[in-house]
Amino acid sequence: MSATNTTSRLQKLRALMQSPEYNVTAFVVPSEDAHQSEYVAECDERRSYISGFTGSAGLAVVALDSAALFTDGRYFLQASQQLDSNWTLMKSGLPEVPTWQDYLVKNLPAGSRIGIDPLVFTATDAYKLETDLAKVGSSLVPVANLVDLIWENRPARPASKLMTLSTKTTGRTHTEKIQQLRKDLEKKGVAGFVVSGLDEIAWLFNLRGADVHCNPVFFSYAIVTPDYVNLYLQEKSTSADVREHLGAEVTVKSYETVFDDLRALSANLKANKQKFLLGARTNLAMAVALGKENTTETRSPVTDAKAIKNETEMEGIRQCHLRDSAALINYFAWLEEQLANGVELDEADGAERLQQFRAEQAGFVGLSFDTISSTGPNGAIIHYKPEKPNAARINPDLVYLCDSGGQYIDGTTDVTRTLHFKTPSAHEKRCFTRVLQGHIAIDTAVFPDGTSGYLLDVLARRALWSDGLDFRHGTGHGVGAFLNVHEGPHGCGTRIAYNDIPLVPGMTLTNEPGYYEDGKFGIRIENVMLVRKADTLHNFGGRGYYGFEHVTLVPMQVKLIERSLLTHLEIEWINAYHAECLAKVSPFLAKDSPGLKWLQREAVSI
Amino acid sequence: MSATNTTSRLQKLRALMQSPEYNVTAFVVPSEDAHQSEYVAECDERRSYISGFTGSAGLAVVALDSAALFTDGRYFLQASQQLDSNWTLMKSGLPEVPTWQDYLVKNLPAGSRIGIDPLVFTATDAYKLETDLAKVGSSLVPVANLVDLIWENRPARPASKLMTLSTKTTGRTHTEKIQQLRKDLEKKGVAGFVVSGLDEIAWLFNLRGADVHCNPVFFSYAIVTPDYVNLYLQEKSTSADVREHLGAEVTVKSYETVFDDLRALSANLKANKQKFLLGARTNLAMAVALGKENTTETRSPVTDAKAIKNETEMEGIRQCHLRDSAALINYFAWLEEQLANGVELDEADGAERLQQFRAEQAGFVGLSFDTISSTGPNGAIIHYKPEKPNAARINPDLVYLCDSGGQYIDGTTDVTRTLHFKTPSAHEKRCFTRVLQGHIAIDTAVFPDGTSGYLLDVLARRALWSDGLDFRHGTGHGVGAFLNVHEGPHGCGTRIAYNDIPLVPGMTLTNEPGYYEDGKFGIRIENVMLVRKADTLHNFGGRGYYGFEHVTLVPMQVKLIERSLLTHLEIEWINAYHAECLAKVSPFLAKDSPGLKWLQREAVSI
Repeated sequence: MSATNTTSRLQKLRALMQSPEYNVTAFVVPSEDAHQSEYVAECDERRSYISGFTGSAGLAVVALDSAALFTDGRYFLQASQQLDSNWTLMKSGLPEVPTWQDYLVKNLPAGSRIGIDPLVFTATDAYKLETDLAKVGSSLVPVANLVDLIWENRPARPASKLMTLSTKTTGRTHTEKIQQLRKDLEKKGVAGFVVSGLDEIAWLFNLRGADVHCNPVFFSYAIVTPDYVNLYLQEKSTSADVREHLGAEVTVKSYETVFDDLRALSANLKANKQKFLLGARTNLAMAVALGKENTTETRSPVTDAKAIKNETEMEGIRQCHLRDSAALINYFAWLEEQLANGVELDEADGAERLQQFRAEQAGFVGLSFDTISSTGPNGAIIHYKPEKPNAARINPDLVYLCDSGGQYIDGTTDVTRTLHFKTPSAHEKRCFTRVLQGHIAIDTAVFPDGTSGYLLDVLARRALWSDGLDFRHGTGHGVGAFLNVHEGPHGCGTRIAYNDIPLVPGMTLTNEPGYYEDGKFGIRIENVMLVRKADTLHNFGGRGYYGFEHVTLVPMQVKLIERSLLTHLEIEWINAYHAECLAKVSPFLAKDSPGLKWLQREAVSI
Repeated sequence: MSATNTTSRLQKLRALMQSPEYNVTAFVVPSEDAHQSEYVAECDERRSYISGFTGSAGLAVVALDSAALFTDGRYFLQASQQLDSNWTLMKSGLPEVPTWQDYLVKNLPAGSRIGIDPLVFTATDAYKLETDLAKVGSSLVPVANLVDLIWENRPARPASKLMTLSTKTTGRTHTEKIQQLRKDLEKKGVAGFVVSGLDEIAWLFNLRGADVHCNPVFFSYAIVTPDYVNLYLQEKSTSADVREHLGAEVTVKSYETVFDDLRALSANLKANKQKFLLGARTNLAMAVALGKENTTETRSPVTDAKAIKNETEMEGIRQCHLRDSAALINYFAWLEEQLANGVELDEADGAERLQQFRAEQAGFVGLSFDTISSTGPNGAIIHYKPEKPNAARINPDLVYLCDSGGQYIDGTTDVTRTLHFKTPSAHEKRCFTRVLQGHIAIDTAVFPDGTSGYLLDVLARRALWSDGLDFRHGTGHGVGAFLNVHEGPHGCGTRIAYNDIPLVPGMTLTNEPGYYEDGKFGIRIENVMLVRKADTLHNFGGRGYYGFEHVTLVPMQVKLIERSLLTHLEIEWINAYHAECLAKVSPFLAKDSPGLKWLQREAVSI
């Protein structure tokens, strides 16, 4: 990785900042787009453009005589390589390093005028920052996106043709979903809702796009009230098909016009003393257009509804995971054979071949995220992405970690397996087994209604903790149904926000404990699960008990298991899981294929 | 239980309320004393006196034409029996029942003048209530305690002679503790601290009293600043011994004069722009005397320091638990023999005999709480206290639950065992075993620095949950060192406040999962543990891993264990625990005694 020369870009940006039109002393460039997407389109990679740093998380603050890039521990090394001498790397999380908000308040001179693009900041964050800045006489100044104005050859905003989904895969028409949303809005006593999350809109209207890499979403906004539904789309994305699918009830309007409509709404709301609901991720520009006083903030009811899959979606999720497991098994069989034959392969070759195996499966649309195919030390880099020509040769003497997933018409997958192609060390086996015990503890957990993933997280860590080991990421996240591979509002991990969201039947959750030894190896074992009612002997409290159903069915490598560490219940779990893999995935593997043979050899009792 | 006729008491109270001197339309009577003690002296049982309801938790609101008593689910039955027709029972926790705060705001007429005794309300609660009442034009009016004024034959405030403790049991002189407190205050940048928790004062000055039943504390306040230490004691409690113990550095003043001193301080603080620290439990009267603007609220630094036992205290805790375990073993051996011989005993007889066995032990001072000796259905009443003549006969065909503890000069104990004297049912065994699995999971937990008891709580419930069972109380609380049997700030349970307090070496914690079947039986298994550094293979993250050391050593009744439910690790734990009981407690049992024989028979491998 090498640094980008940002001197000229910064010069142009600072010239704009000092122009009478904008007149700001600093400009803040976050990673997010106008929809607060986790993954963004190339045209929205403003922070990468201005700083040269391409990691997924980070924020740039360009002042007239300084430029600071804030990022977290995952990216310290990468950022230090990619930033040129114009930049100061701010290592977020280190005790002596301020948050970027504190930096704006305390490190920039009092009385600063801090420019932001109100599209890429949430209203919540902006309001809080405004208050803090006011204390030192500084102010937040919403302006145009100054990076866009100086960005040479900025890619065009993608506008993929939309795909319509039938109830055969979604289980519910968009009309039914809108009906439910209206009931939710009525309950909350609000006049309407501006939907701005791209996956929320895709889910609500049973449409999919391809505007963001690996995320089947499309640039859009929607306004839903008791009286009308407006869907704001890019012209190029729409078609007669889409209009027919949406029906007369939904008015399709142009993507750019949503702000005019919100401004028009503002006066009505004020006159009728009504409020519009804003999701916690809604951008400042929308809140300003509606008028702050006419809005009330909450978690998006669409996000909440989307998280609970219906029977059709659950069946689709089960089915696509069978095919996806078959693809991964085919890949592992192939990879093992290549390595046994002494073929030299790098991590990117592996990722490419795996994608081919996925593409052979029915209903395949694309990847759900860039494949993490990593050998030895690279496995300890949690968000590693192998790229030619830097990808390492897959060394059969080292631990191999593969985290990958696909988008299928009937669901989204996300699976990690850790393999060793020769003889693992006793230490590697012990670590793998501790991770596996955490995985089994989550998989077999039964818990009463009202329990959050925040509380269950300890079960994933207990076995690791007993050896003084741990992992620095969450245990699980929600997964969309043919949608984003990460979705909320729930999750399993140490983030306290998860404690507000009980796990309920119909939710998806990954189960992915791990262990990472810097410079040596990484271990992660990940399945996707569905939350479902548990069949318990009793029902103390009367509110029901829930458990998990795993839908990923790829064997755990037996040679990495230290059997003596396991209880008989854990051994029984492994044996039952392997029997289930064999029974359910074999039909998706060709007769006499290397994949089927590999499955039969690996999915054994221990 | 029968109701108390409160007509005349209420008449007198209402006459006072309407007098020009007080002029209030309601008067609120909580359970707490001026020190926010969990257990109070008889003279402070104002809520019991005015309402007739004697449960440990509850609050009375007497208006001119109504009287309401709020209590929680543990006490609905008892309160309905003890309240006469003057009273309305408000069942706290039921959806249609307001909190007492909401009741004051919404159910009493707007513009009410609500009298309280500022000594028995915390400043925090009062400030919040004031704000809420103001919204409806009502107000909070601090007055004298009107119940005290009409209470005929009110018991005198106890003033037990104080006992001085040497560093042989406390490990640190009061001078060292005050030194540490001063450092804490300096760090927080405050001018001083008013100590008002009775156990905090007892700990800080290495003194003990007997003013509150089962709690070795004494009525007192203390003020600590960098320049002086004032200890406010009742005249009758002090002696030359106590003054000598305290030394010249501590000024002993009269209990009642603390408020004058606080008022005098107020002006100084204001003039010097300094603040005094108030613990979150400090009463409104003290906050008012100091001046609200001169105080800052926080968790008491004394409570935090007290929670972490030093080596001497830990050794005392270990030692007294050996003797206490011997007493309980003697009792169980005796009880079993009596029942086998067909002797009729009631629950109170059992409790009395157990107290005698404790009293035989060296260093015994008294009980740490009223013994819960309960047979069959009474075991499901979590705070049951057997009293003649209503105590039930101990039926050997039913499950027997015994939760008890002692105060010793070197520590405080709290232990629960559940026994069956004949043949338990398969259901009783399965429930007992699930509770035992939760107990073992907590006992063997290893966790990184920073982990709270809020997070560990799920380990105590996991086995129960797998059968659809649960229990409605916390898993563990701190225990004083020859002090209150319940102490904070930490704990293990579902109270979110516990999540703010990581468990660190030196803390005590009980481990007491249970299961209760209304009308049938109760099961609880409780040990006291010390948090200590764990000896782990690795130290990922570098901050250390902790675990528990159990100090209670009484066998688990083998006949109640369903072995087939256990893992080999759980079986190994039970066998090792029993071996430890045998090795460590045998020396405290007389040769050929029934207790020793019982221990040898019960503490076996399974």
